[in-house]
Amino acid sequence: MTTTDTPVSVLGLGLMGQALAAAFLRAGHPTTVWNRTAAKAGDLVADGARLAPSAGAAIAAGPLTIVCVTDYPAVRELLGASDVELSGRTVINLTSGDSAQARETAHWAEKRGARYLDGAIMAVPPAIGTADALILHSGPRADFEAHEATLAALGTVTHLGEDHGLASLYDVAGLAMMWSVLNAWLQGTAMLRTAGVDAVTYAPFARQLAMGVADWLPGYAEQVDAGSFPAEVSALETDARAMTHLIEEAEALGVNAELPRLFKVMADRAIAAGHGGEQYPVLIEEFSRPGKE
Amino acid sequence: MTTTDTPVSVLGLGLMGQALAAAFLRAGHPTTVWNRTAAKAGDLVADGARLAPSAGAAIAAGPLTIVCVTDYPAVRELLGASDVELSGRTVINLTSGDSAQARETAHWAEKRGARYLDGAIMAVPPAIGTADALILHSGPRADFEAHEATLAALGTVTHLGEDHGLASLYDVAGLAMMWSVLNAWLQGTAMLRTAGVDAVTYAPFARQLAMGVADWLPGYAEQVDAGSFPAEVSALETDARAMTHLIEEAEALGVNAELPRLFKVMADRAIAAGHGGEQYPVLIEEFSRPGKE
Ligand SMILES: NC(=O)c1ccc[n+]([C@@H]2O[C@H](COP(=O)([O-])OP(=O)(O)OC[C@H]3O[C@@H](n4cnc5c(N)ncnc54)[C@H](OP(=O)(O)O)[C@@H]3O)[C@@H](O)[C@H]2O)c1
Ligand SMILES: NC(=O)c1ccc[n+]([C@@H]2O[C@H](COP(=O)([O-])OP(=O)(O)OC[C@H]3O[C@@H](n4cnc5c(N)ncnc54)[C@H](OP(=O)(O)O)[C@@H]3O)[C@@H](O)[C@H]2O)c1
Repeated sequence: MTTTDTPVSVLGLGLMGQALAAAFLRAGHPTTVWNRTAAKAGDLVADGARLAPSAGAAIAAGPLTIVCVTDYPAVRELLGASDVELSGRTVINLTSGDSAQARETAHWAEKRGARYLDGAIMAVPPAIGTADALILHSGPRADFEAHEATLAALGTVTHLGEDHGLASLYDVAGLAMMWSVLNAWLQGTAMLRTAGVDAVTYAPFARQLAMGVADWLPGYAEQVDAGSFPAEVSALETDARAMTHLIEEAEALGVNAELPRLFKVMADRAIAAGHGGEQYPVLIEEFSRPGKE
Repeated sequence: MTTTDTPVSVLGLGLMGQALAAAFLRAGHPTTVWNRTAAKAGDLVADGARLAPSAGAAIAAGPLTIVCVTDYPAVRELLGASDVELSGRTVINLTSGDSAQARETAHWAEKRGARYLDGAIMAVPPAIGTADALILHSGPRADFEAHEATLAALGTVTHLGEDHGLASLYDVAGLAMMWSVLNAWLQGTAMLRTAGVDAVTYAPFARQLAMGVADWLPGYAEQVDAGSFPAEVSALETDARAMTHLIEEAEALGVNAELPRLFKVMADRAIAAGHGGEQYPVLIEEFSRPGKE
């Protein structure tokens, strides 16, 4: 049987579940769907999907089931229904949640005989089915590889490792990067606008800076893993002085200074701990501690 | 006279001033130097620099003077010395400071007959003279263009606009981007390390995410300039829910959650102001306000 003949079932037809099922259909996969509220299957059925009468029937329809509902309690509720037989089936749960929920649900599903992968979708529904949709998976590598060709219909799919918690950890870590780049850009934009500089004029500079710094990360990561932070290009104390300039400038311009102040709070703690002469990645010690409520 | 025959004077021979003067010498420019503590000129003189006996004599030695000292009060002190004649000279001040200091010093120098450009160096001394050294200039464009070929000996030189405050504004805005990307990477690294993932394993993912988001900035900037934030890819409320996941995950893992909490504080304010259904760049309104002390 060729790849696109592989049947797949999709449980949960919210905005995201509908996009997932539609991408499988477009790629030619025989697609069975189920949703608590059956009416949401209408468009998909018109496009060739088979509507199953229950979650259990949808799971029984083929070897591979994708689950994408609101949250993990909903996942457990629908997979725990009395007519569901998980033994010998592969379940890929693309519902958002935290790493502990992912590990618990993996344990729960595996006890019932399922092969289980936990995933995270770093994309909005309209991007599903394009290379821009990044879909992360964690759990047994063999189970990922067995279905990788089918999953590829959804976007750029990757396997992060055997620990079922990894997909949600990478997901939130990636979101932290997203909001950080956006916030830094907004901080700069707010400052430049006080001097009459348009956002579109400033954006290419911000973009270039973000890309330049992104390129340092693999090298800086070696310092973190080595636990040694020689000040090869600059010392944390020098950064802290420049942070003071940034805070004073933001305050003088009347724009928000909370993000600049948080930069300085983190740096000052590391300096107080005796790391002022070391390089920026020494802050990993502060980021690894709870800090202030 | 060919470009590299253009004489240049450098005032201030700290770590950065020495790197600047050395780059001019390497590029073949007749270079006059001065420092309050004359001993710091030793290496440069050995490499062919002329040591001037006073700031005034150094400025008189040629049409173009670069100033790079600790701060603006030091700039005003040395340019205000009784033997200094600024009339008809071009002064480029690469000392770090804020936009108000830059504008005031420009006004002060222009009243004394100088052509004045304010600059900011986004590089460490060892990078000076390479393309990696980004050197920003603001002030009259004609004065920048008259000396652009000479300045090119220092690195990648750009002119941002006529407002003398722009170089320091772009400088601190760029630093905000730098610290944000680094902090987001450290936040993610701290989280992933709790699952045994090395920093070097996570770094390429963080790098790719940062670059991907950087590419959105020019498009998002159009929303800011238009003052219109339709939720084309996602609504701020959706971001805020995912921020809660991030905060809870960071807390559960026992790592720092202050940066995640600040994301949410900013988003919640915009949601409280009625913008929950709009797209992330609507936060420009929050970043443009003083916020919390
Ligand atoms: N939309 C995005 O941009 C996006 C991006 C990345 C990740 N995600 C994640 O994808 C998942 C789904 O998001 P969505 O946008 O599709 O949400 P949605 O449009 O609100 O849909 C929620 C789905 O969950 C189902 N559901 C909720 N509780 C249930 C229960 N107890 N039993 C059975 N089904 C239940 C709903 O069924 P009914 O129709 O019967 O209510 C519906 O199919 C979430 O975890 C979300 O975080 C979404
Ligand atoms: N180093 C970097 O990585 C870096 C990067 C970007 C920008 N910058 C900026 O470049 C500027 C210089 O930095 P630097 O690293 O060269 O600092 P530095 O090594 O501490 O040198 C300071 C210089 O300023 C001079 N100076 C201070 N007060 C003076 C006064 N009242 N009158 C005359 N000269 C005075 C000092 O003269 P004496 O030798 O007589 O004390 C010395 O030449 C600063 O604004 C800094 O923020 C530096």
